[in-house]
Amino acid sequence: MKLDTYLPMIEQKLEELLPKEHCRYERLIEAMRYSLLDGGKRVRPTLVLEFCRLCGGDVQAALPFACAVEMIHTYSLIHDDLPCMDNDDLRRGKPSNHKAYGEDTALLAGDGLLTLAFATMLSPESLATVGAGRAAEAAFQLASAAGIHGMVGGQEIDLRSEGKAISLETLQEMDEKKTGALILASARMGCALAGADERQRDAAEHYARAIGLAFQIVDDILDVEGDAATLGKATGSDAENQKSTYVSLLGLETAKQRVKELTHTAVRALEPFGEEGKALADFAKSLASRRS
Amino acid sequence: MKLDTYLPMIEQKLEELLPKEHCRYERLIEAMRYSLLDGGKRVRPTLVLEFCRLCGGDVQAALPFACAVEMIHTYSLIHDDLPCMDNDDLRRGKPSNHKAYGEDTALLAGDGLLTLAFATMLSPESLATVGAGRAAEAAFQLASAAGIHGMVGGQEIDLRSEGKAISLETLQEMDEKKTGALILASARMGCALAGADERQRDAAEHYARAIGLAFQIVDDILDVEGDAATLGKATGSDAENQKSTYVSLLGLETAKQRVKELTHTAVRALEPFGEEGKALADFAKSLASRRS
Repeated sequence: MKLDTYLPMIEQKLEELLPKEHCRYERLIEAMRYSLLDGGKRVRPTLVLEFCRLCGGDVQAALPFACAVEMIHTYSLIHDDLPCMDNDDLRRGKPSNHKAYGEDTALLAGDGLLTLAFATMLSPESLATVGAGRAAEAAFQLASAAGIHGMVGGQEIDLRSEGKAISLETLQEMDEKKTGALILASARMGCALAGADERQRDAAEHYARAIGLAFQIVDDILDVEGDAATLGKATGSDAENQKSTYVSLLGLETAKQRVKELTHTAVRALEPFGEEGKALADFAKSLASRRS
Repeated sequence: MKLDTYLPMIEQKLEELLPKEHCRYERLIEAMRYSLLDGGKRVRPTLVLEFCRLCGGDVQAALPFACAVEMIHTYSLIHDDLPCMDNDDLRRGKPSNHKAYGEDTALLAGDGLLTLAFATMLSPESLATVGAGRAAEAAFQLASAAGIHGMVGGQEIDLRSEGKAISLETLQEMDEKKTGALILASARMGCALAGADERQRDAAEHYARAIGLAFQIVDDILDVEGDAATLGKATGSDAENQKSTYVSLLGLETAKQRVKELTHTAVRALEPFGEEGKALADFAKSLASRRS
């Protein structure tokens, strides 16, 4: 099983889930499509699907849930880029949503994607396929991860830390909430949809926590060492904004060492899945060595 | 049964559902509390609870769902007031959320309330009380009403209509989505949570559609005839912005006549509930004659 196999499935389902009809608000739908169908790495949906498979679940049935996670991720990027937040003009190498569609429609496109995620997971078809109990459990995990004790709370910590030196502890809490929570939720949702047992759930959680943190440390490293063209965004912005990062707090070498250790932890967490866990182990390694 | 009886229940539950703990993002939570616990009329949660009761359901079990609707309503007000949207400085007679907490935190407070609504409806406690099937159905109705084919789509129509004369048809579609959808969802959720039959659901839908439209027409009338102090917001803004309203399109007298007819339709729709429907009939009449 190669994880790449999931990509065309995810792209096609995302495309299907977004409405296309002519209507009085098609500009809004266009704005949602612009950001959602934009060749992201689809890390989170891939985790949902692969953990679902590893725990014996039906990957096709999990697909709408995988897409829902990507909708939540995309909404958060659109809102983060807004002028009142990070004020970023570029995203994945093209104008950010509000640069392309205006602030008002970008705000609504984010709100629309956030809401569509829940409508997708809880649709009558979805309930009929996976059962209301599992669907509701998965949707609850996503709501919790996206909410005030997850992404939204992490964003607020980020805002209140701007221009200030923060401790490693604060940085870690911020990242656990801002980015880690959604990665953790993806793994948990895969398990929930498959009706996984305790041991499988524990393994998935350990793996997801480790790669979630490693992912963030790599982001900070790439902001120092990465190539703007490959990344599709400017580098050096953290240093310029005097932002506390894993690199500034730990030093570049220690940060790289932490990534190695976390990747090792992630790989070891997969042991209960035996040979079947190999794809996710490789995935953890590829995230650690990514260039964009 | 007086509908006012629900108010203290709703207020107390809203208070309970919002976290209070000391944390690194308590300013965000304060911003959410500021707008949510602000003495709104709680029209939508009241509809959830009363339709649940009328259809033989458990009102206490429906309470988290009723509160979820109010969270969605409040999030939409916070985002609508933002400078990139309506740019309103006042809401319910006090500074709007972004005036009090800044645009960034206001944006997140809206996102946080939207997400908390789903976490509330799909929490393990909530699933245990009403059952996953009914909880998921109610949450789906709310997600659909709040989403692109509901509130968010209606907002986009509103944005694209700004400064333009629009037809009665467009105005009606806009209002059905912007405000009607959430009122309709409230009635439907009450029915779903009670496991209502087809006839009860039809009655609830007819009632909700009628009061939803009447509510909006009254809003337009109040913008012409209302008192700014009673309303807690400036009047005359529609005319000032050359906005097409029911009053501008139908004339003041015809608009008032429409409210009367719609209220009559709403009252008649309640017939299947017999004497028990009286409170909702009075409620429809009071909405029609409201001053704020």
